[in-house]
Amino acid sequence: MGPSDALHPLDAALRLEPLAEGRYGGHTHPAWANMVGPFGGITAAQLLQAICVDPRRQGEPLALTINYAGAVADGAFEVEAHPVRTTRTTQHWTLALRQGDALCSTGTAVFAVRRPTWSAPELAMPAVPPADQVPAETRSPPVEWPRRYEFRFVHGGWPDYRQAQEQADSRTLLWVRDEPPRPLDAPALAAIADVFYPRVFRRRGRFSPAGTVSITTYFHADAAALAAQGARPLLATAVGRRFTQGFFDQSAELWSDDGHLLASSHQVVYFKA
Amino acid sequence: MGPSDALHPLDAALRLEPLAEGRYGGHTHPAWANMVGPFGGITAAQLLQAICVDPRRQGEPLALTINYAGAVADGAFEVEAHPVRTTRTTQHWTLALRQGDALCSTGTAVFAVRRPTWSAPELAMPAVPPADQVPAETRSPPVEWPRRYEFRFVHGGWPDYRQAQEQADSRTLLWVRDEPPRPLDAPALAAIADVFYPRVFRRRGRFSPAGTVSITTYFHADAAALAAQGARPLLATAVGRRFTQGFFDQSAELWSDDGHLLASSHQVVYFKA
Repeated sequence: MGPSDALHPLDAALRLEPLAEGRYGGHTHPAWANMVGPFGGITAAQLLQAICVDPRRQGEPLALTINYAGAVADGAFEVEAHPVRTTRTTQHWTLALRQGDALCSTGTAVFAVRRPTWSAPELAMPAVPPADQVPAETRSPPVEWPRRYEFRFVHGGWPDYRQAQEQADSRTLLWVRDEPPRPLDAPALAAIADVFYPRVFRRRGRFSPAGTVSITTYFHADAAALAAQGARPLLATAVGRRFTQGFFDQSAELWSDDGHLLASSHQVVYFKA
Repeated sequence: MGPSDALHPLDAALRLEPLAEGRYGGHTHPAWANMVGPFGGITAAQLLQAICVDPRRQGEPLALTINYAGAVADGAFEVEAHPVRTTRTTQHWTLALRQGDALCSTGTAVFAVRRPTWSAPELAMPAVPPADQVPAETRSPPVEWPRRYEFRFVHGGWPDYRQAQEQADSRTLLWVRDEPPRPLDAPALAAIADVFYPRVFRRRGRFSPAGTVSITTYFHADAAALAAQGARPLLATAVGRRFTQGFFDQSAELWSDDGHLLASSHQVVYFKA
């Protein structure tokens, strides 16, 4: 094995070669392949990473929106990340991922300086058995990226397509972590925010062409809180709101194993059915 | 009254003067003033409007993300809206609002062609009395924009700051429509998605400096469905998830009065406390 083979697959995918200020060269990684092109979560993580490694960065991720404008082909890509306005508290970025002349993804991000304030949870973590009491899923869909995670489904696992059956609700609740385990950081969390298979698969009990059009993730935890979570499983849940005219939205929450909401994430998804 | 005085205040605020392809001149409108600068919802509506009036536009709004990078001063501004990728189904746009050299807002939007498909609701409309059985709020906060709406609070109205009291939850549920009444369209809906006062005011039972950093709205209804709603009140609800280190997020749903989810909207908000 060469040195690069020793990298965790997430870190391998996050390698960006600086080309100029705010411009990086990257490469799709076969470990993260989806049905067509890469897993959307890894694209989001790569775009966020371009900000995280920029010396102009101030603060930590607060909001990230990635729009999937066109498929990313296997191969090289270029990322652009530009800070467009910096205030005392927040820094606003614009993002783009290109392959040659094709714009594949656009995005915006807000980084923020967090300060101690009055704080309060509101949403409560769902009551579930601890991760080690929930069996790890052994089946996997016929694409590569799900093998990069350990899924322990409490509710709403992969649909059994041999027994297509409509479901009354689209909720999934699971423990999830990187596989192999890896300490949590913001790019890893941005990727995990997209691990929920399209909710239309669950509602209809069957597979159909579907893909995220736009995802927005809000971060509620600083680097110290993410580091404290380490490589232990996160509790994760997602549910859809309305499926109509070829699109639906779904919202997700990601919790530390000691009950803190680390991120909430929303996406609108295209589907054919 | 001159002809422009006869315009509905929303239409007056949405007037954009074409300067070049994808570039428009606009002006803040005193009817929409907030504590500092304009109501964030009207800025979102103005940016969306720049796409709606563009002859290059294909389809209808699906997703809109607006980032509030810096305060908008009373006066003239310039909007830029560029289609960056168009596919058969979706069209991706980038957005910016500037005043002189200052970038005040960035954003992205996805427009989409909707097609008949398998459809299903999932989230159910909250059970509430019809709008005409809920009294219209007569108090108003000491800023101008709330007078542009009729609020009929079922739950979680304006906090009574004379009796500051922490609340266990931040949910607000209300009937809301433009005041004076105006037929619903996408820019109006984009503005209404931001009518919820910051959830931290409700949780803490007191006012403190706060402002939306980024808002994302997903549209679940086409122009025909919005037109069918007409000028009747929408059922609207919003709730926060976690308040920590100077930021929180809140999510909202907007329903037609016959029970269809027209939009869901999410935002992350800065607060001082």
